Amino acid sequence: MEIIVGKNAGFCFGVERAVEIIRKALKKINDDVYSLGPIIHNPQTNEMFEEMGLKMVDSIDEIEKGSLVIRSHGLEPEIIKTAESKGIRIIDATCPLVKKVQDYAELLYKEGYKLFILGDPLHPEIRAVAGFTDNSANVIENENDLKDNIRGCRKVGVVIQTTQILDNYKNVIYKLIKNCDEFRIYNTICDATHERQEETVELARKSDLIIIVGGKNSANTTRLKKVAESIGCVACHIESPDELEKNWFHSVKVVSIVGGASTPEWIVNDTVLRIKEFK
Amino acid sequence: MEIIVGKNAGFCFGVERAVEIIRKALKKINDDVYSLGPIIHNPQTNEMFEEMGLKMVDSIDEIEKGSLVIRSHGLEPEIIKTAESKGIRIIDATCPLVKKVQDYAELLYKEGYKLFILGDPLHPEIRAVAGFTDNSANVIENENDLKDNIRGCRKVGVVIQTTQILDNYKNVIYKLIKNCDEFRIYNTICDATHERQEETVELARKSDLIIIVGGKNSANTTRLKKVAESIGCVACHIESPDELEKNWFHSVKVVSIVGGASTPEWIVNDTVLRIKEFK
Repeated sequence: MEIIVGKNAGFCFGVERAVEIIRKALKKINDDVYSLGPIIHNPQTNEMFEEMGLKMVDSIDEIEKGSLVIRSHGLEPEIIKTAESKGIRIIDATCPLVKKVQDYAELLYKEGYKLFILGDPLHPEIRAVAGFTDNSANVIENENDLKDNIRGCRKVGVVIQTTQILDNYKNVIYKLIKNCDEFRIYNTICDATHERQEETVELARKSDLIIIVGGKNSANTTRLKKVAESIGCVACHIESPDELEKNWFHSVKVVSIVGGASTPEWIVNDTVLRIKEFK
Repeated sequence: MEIIVGKNAGFCFGVERAVEIIRKALKKINDDVYSLGPIIHNPQTNEMFEEMGLKMVDSIDEIEKGSLVIRSHGLEPEIIKTAESKGIRIIDATCPLVKKVQDYAELLYKEGYKLFILGDPLHPEIRAVAGFTDNSANVIENENDLKDNIRGCRKVGVVIQTTQILDNYKNVIYKLIKNCDEFRIYNTICDATHERQEETVELARKSDLIIIVGGKNSANTTRLKKVAESIGCVACHIESPDELEKNWFHSVKVVSIVGGASTPEWIVNDTVLRIKEFK
């Protein structure tokens, strides 16, 4: 059995940067350090941070003092303001590419564009981006979300969730253009996401099985599974090598392994070692 | 035989305005009045202007003094400058909607966007618009025109010929968005053109025959023929009622008549009268 590991497996630039910032902060700061929700969509990394002393809470109301880490997904500006007003120190680990989405959304909003954000309304990245438009933006997941909100728009501005696929929004974009006088879009999709998806397509084409390693709640990781399946390859999504089953590899000649943007390299490596045991 | 006349038959707002401006100028000015090329894409109207004294020439080099009329299609700014430097008086009859295309093209060009004009590179409207970008713009008729010119574009700006159909450019627009970081489009298609096309579709659906009246060199008129044919209706394009043939109407129960933006109402009315004779 041939085992191929995707070149893009392992943390993306934004996650690696955030993990480094938070690790350094935890070493340096003696006071309490909090995050709102898990740091990244990877359980093993979050456990490591908790062991280092990070306190994960759900709401800013649960924090009274100390430091607050902003995750790579970013955070709503009103929550940051609330934290600052309580004297809480901010450690900003927002991915610079996510910061761009926030900046462009704010720019378009301030320049009078009616803003549409293409992405998942429940994803923390998008909740934060919407905050930069005083929550006035319309978050669009698919064509069905375009109804009365596109009527009578003169200037339409658009930004996209970094981990989305542009092709999924072709009709949405065209409908928006047809219904306005001016349309301005910033293609804020992250290259790393795109490259990971393209590599997954390429590997799925030459593999009998593809193993997707990463958090089950990671949007970009679960999307890799769909990408592989869309071209007819059998794909299994695991969070940990413990989930691998020997019978998956029966009569498999080529297996490929890819990881999401929040999947540490060591889990990918452990996955390879475990698969080798099945040979 | 039922005869239906399109509600939008007759000059569009821009052509009517231009014809009025030029008619007034010809009455008032005693000196020579020139135009570069025919005033509108309608031979009868152009003959009328020539009878009123208008001199139609091909190049600014042929004019040494007097007045120059800018047609509703607009004119390249460098030609206007040459005329002004010769002391030639300018009578500007550019359609206000075409002026908008020029203004937006100039704005995008000055703000550093790589400009794409969607339209016919040989049409006078588009030649003039391109002039407002120091002729740096890429004129795109269809997908095949997108080659090396879309590589490495950061900021892409787009304007559209007033008489085009947006649907024809769906793939072009999407390809441009995919290949840049920021995409900004002004939908400069004229509503009158759009309404005329929609009406033609509606009439073609309930007619056995559709007569398109207007200049053979008028882009928006010839497009009406294609629009009618695209939904399977027999369509005949005439410049003058003299071209009508009795045998076209054999076994026709419903005939509709539509005119281009540069077709005077009286030619449409004459067409109706002639068809009534065939009854």
